[in-house]
Amino acid sequence: MNRAPIAAALLLVIAPQAAARPAPASAPAIPDPDGKGLAFRIVADLTTEVGQRLAATPREAAARDWAVARLTALGFVNVRIEPYTMSGWERGEERGSLTAPAPQKLALTALGNSGATPPGGLTAPLVYFDGLAALKATPANALAGRIAFIDNAMKVTQDGSSYGQFGAARRQGPAIAASKGAIAVLIRSIGTDHNRDPHTGVTNWPAGTTPIPAAAVSAPDADLIARTARTGRPIVASLQLTPKFTGDQPSGNVVAEILGRDPKLPPILAACHLDSWDLATGAIDDGAGCAIVTAAALQASQHGPLLRTIRLLWAGAEERGGFGGAAYAKAHGNEPHALAMEADFGADRVWKAVSGLAPANAALTEKLGLALAPLGVVITSGQTEGGSDIEAIAAAQHLPVIDLMQDGTRYFDLHHTPDDTLDKIDPAQLQQAVDAYAAAVKVLADEPGPITPVNGR
Amino acid sequence: MNRAPIAAALLLVIAPQAAARPAPASAPAIPDPDGKGLAFRIVADLTTEVGQRLAATPREAAARDWAVARLTALGFVNVRIEPYTMSGWERGEERGSLTAPAPQKLALTALGNSGATPPGGLTAPLVYFDGLAALKATPANALAGRIAFIDNAMKVTQDGSSYGQFGAARRQGPAIAASKGAIAVLIRSIGTDHNRDPHTGVTNWPAGTTPIPAAAVSAPDADLIARTARTGRPIVASLQLTPKFTGDQPSGNVVAEILGRDPKLPPILAACHLDSWDLATGAIDDGAGCAIVTAAALQASQHGPLLRTIRLLWAGAEERGGFGGAAYAKAHGNEPHALAMEADFGADRVWKAVSGLAPANAALTEKLGLALAPLGVVITSGQTEGGSDIEAIAAAQHLPVIDLMQDGTRYFDLHHTPDDTLDKIDPAQLQQAVDAYAAAVKVLADEPGPITPVNGR
Repeated sequence: MNRAPIAAALLLVIAPQAAARPAPASAPAIPDPDGKGLAFRIVADLTTEVGQRLAATPREAAARDWAVARLTALGFVNVRIEPYTMSGWERGEERGSLTAPAPQKLALTALGNSGATPPGGLTAPLVYFDGLAALKATPANALAGRIAFIDNAMKVTQDGSSYGQFGAARRQGPAIAASKGAIAVLIRSIGTDHNRDPHTGVTNWPAGTTPIPAAAVSAPDADLIARTARTGRPIVASLQLTPKFTGDQPSGNVVAEILGRDPKLPPILAACHLDSWDLATGAIDDGAGCAIVTAAALQASQHGPLLRTIRLLWAGAEERGGFGGAAYAKAHGNEPHALAMEADFGADRVWKAVSGLAPANAALTEKLGLALAPLGVVITSGQTEGGSDIEAIAAAQHLPVIDLMQDGTRYFDLHHTPDDTLDKIDPAQLQQAVDAYAAAVKVLADEPGPITPVNGR
Repeated sequence: MNRAPIAAALLLVIAPQAAARPAPASAPAIPDPDGKGLAFRIVADLTTEVGQRLAATPREAAARDWAVARLTALGFVNVRIEPYTMSGWERGEERGSLTAPAPQKLALTALGNSGATPPGGLTAPLVYFDGLAALKATPANALAGRIAFIDNAMKVTQDGSSYGQFGAARRQGPAIAASKGAIAVLIRSIGTDHNRDPHTGVTNWPAGTTPIPAAAVSAPDADLIARTARTGRPIVASLQLTPKFTGDQPSGNVVAEILGRDPKLPPILAACHLDSWDLATGAIDDGAGCAIVTAAALQASQHGPLLRTIRLLWAGAEERGGFGGAAYAKAHGNEPHALAMEADFGADRVWKAVSGLAPANAALTEKLGLALAPLGVVITSGQTEGGSDIEAIAAAQHLPVIDLMQDGTRYFDLHHTPDDTLDKIDPAQLQQAVDAYAAAVKVLADEPGPITPVNGR
């Protein structure tokens, strides 16, 4: 690998900051009282003043009110809550242990959409599977009256691609085990850490399936189960989970804008999600994402309005299954959008951009690359990922998407765990991500011509 | 710093292993089925087959039985349980949260010897103290009806000295707060990690004090409380803890020996503790220590018995306050001992030795230094620390002590947390610690002359 271009780029990073330019009077002010940057302040205050924001609960509603107040105070306009209704699910008590061959308490947490155990819990033999494929290969009814344990071998990838593959054990595993008679499912957490903190996340039940109790154990507990299974001694586990589906509940999106100079041009949509899992304060998932797109919109506009409107979408209920993104597409499907982007991959630095623009926009992609290079960000063209919050609108309108890929090396150490807290955020990396999003937004929102997606989206 | 001697030493480490020598028929065999070393196997099996071993509970008793079977199988002689009785304490339910200014769930755990909350829990204003000194400076009765929160600024030290100083907030803080009227105490965990795992450990109540509820919150939760306190907004916390004192319960030590060639010479005592806290499987505290002294005793003797007997003490109930060490001193106070050493500081490598031998034993100290140098271990002479399990016998008999100091850089990330599990052990570092203990034991147990403590012990 040729590292010379990156080294040169890092030198370039310093130059623009050294040359301080006073903002014109018309630009939104960027408050930075503690010197850690506006984005850090937003996520610090959100996690401290609101905390966890589980979808379709009063804490998510409190977060929406907080968001409206903060975005308004920051100078955004057309700040509004766009409500919708969805089915609620809430965690209850959760505890589990091995009872044989030795009593061992398990650190576990229910998966989103888990069913509950019978009153008093359940105790049953545990059957070990080293992955989803082994579970799939098990004969029908082989798990009758048993608890299935699904292991996985997820390892760190900078681009997060291991989540897609190994995450299937969580998304599909419980339903598959239920179809073979299992009365409950435990999985090794979908994660890359070795802490005693389990990772939650949704599991999916095909229509007509009755949810069974499904929980993730921490990596050290999964190691213990795997070691015990290797001895060949029978394992018995005990489980008590009391989650419940709470019926129709209010949720909602928060939308805000910085108006462009040309109201006829479709806006740039920059999204994140406001909801979090309930185990922690959702600092990196996705408080950081909302902080990034918000600070970036302000930073991109700091010398005056850009040509196009920048529209922020702080979506609701992403974790439970992209409800906010779907509601946005339903509400705004008839309005033109120029392009969509999203920040939902933590608080670390952007290392690569993927341009989903058509060859006709090659000049614009090149301009993006030049704007990002001083930050050490490489650019490629090709298939983009987007994200849950822009997925529905991008599909409905065949929108071009730009991916700014954040470094995922430590993301899945923290993702969906009790450990997703403010102290995990490195203010310097967070600010680099803001700088990258701001650079991209500025180029895109100042583009006067048509922005066209590459084939395949 | 001159690094050359260490580099040379590292080269030397490899040489003895390359030159494999067959063990004489009389030497104990060192089993190593998985190639990770005997010590790793001992701690792996103890944590998998027994798990947590809270003092004065049936799980500590199960661990004693396991220890007798394993030590016997390894060829130790005079393997025995030496029972004693002590007051039991067991953890119950534990949960807590901030209820104002925003609802925030706290990751917390009761301190050992904590009192219980009233049925239904308690809710009260929380008063923030940035350390023990601030708490001490508060006027009498200033905390009536309140919950005291004691912060601390513990940072990493290789020698673990920060634990002594900052640990006072846990050991003494709750009793001081109670004396000023507090109805409960929360402390920032005495630790150096940023995980959402609280650190337990004993707190002490002066005679006549009624224990109040006392718990540690994880570092991220302590950060949240500190951030909230800085805003000046009133904080209210809610707490539910149901620990109980269980009265007189059986505990015990496990003792085992490798007999020396000269039965008239007093033995070398090598100690660790078998009990653990109940939150995890006690892999580093102190499964690793027992594994180290045990594997080291065998390794030192692998070419035949040494001059002196090596006596292992796997002490009970260290965590609750050194009950096993005290019981050993009571039972064996009339028998001569040559010297005492202990392993109770995790599973990482030994970096320094402190010789507590008198100037008259300068030649023996030099011999120790030469034996340890190939492992990169420096040696100094001076005041030794010993450890809880040898403290009573060493004091009673004015015994010489050798400290083999393990690297404590990451020890207090894990110490007394749910995260003290097998996956945290690096087999290579653990084996280096075994090699260091074995080298020291071999030199000391082959010393025919008197071994004399330095003045001051």
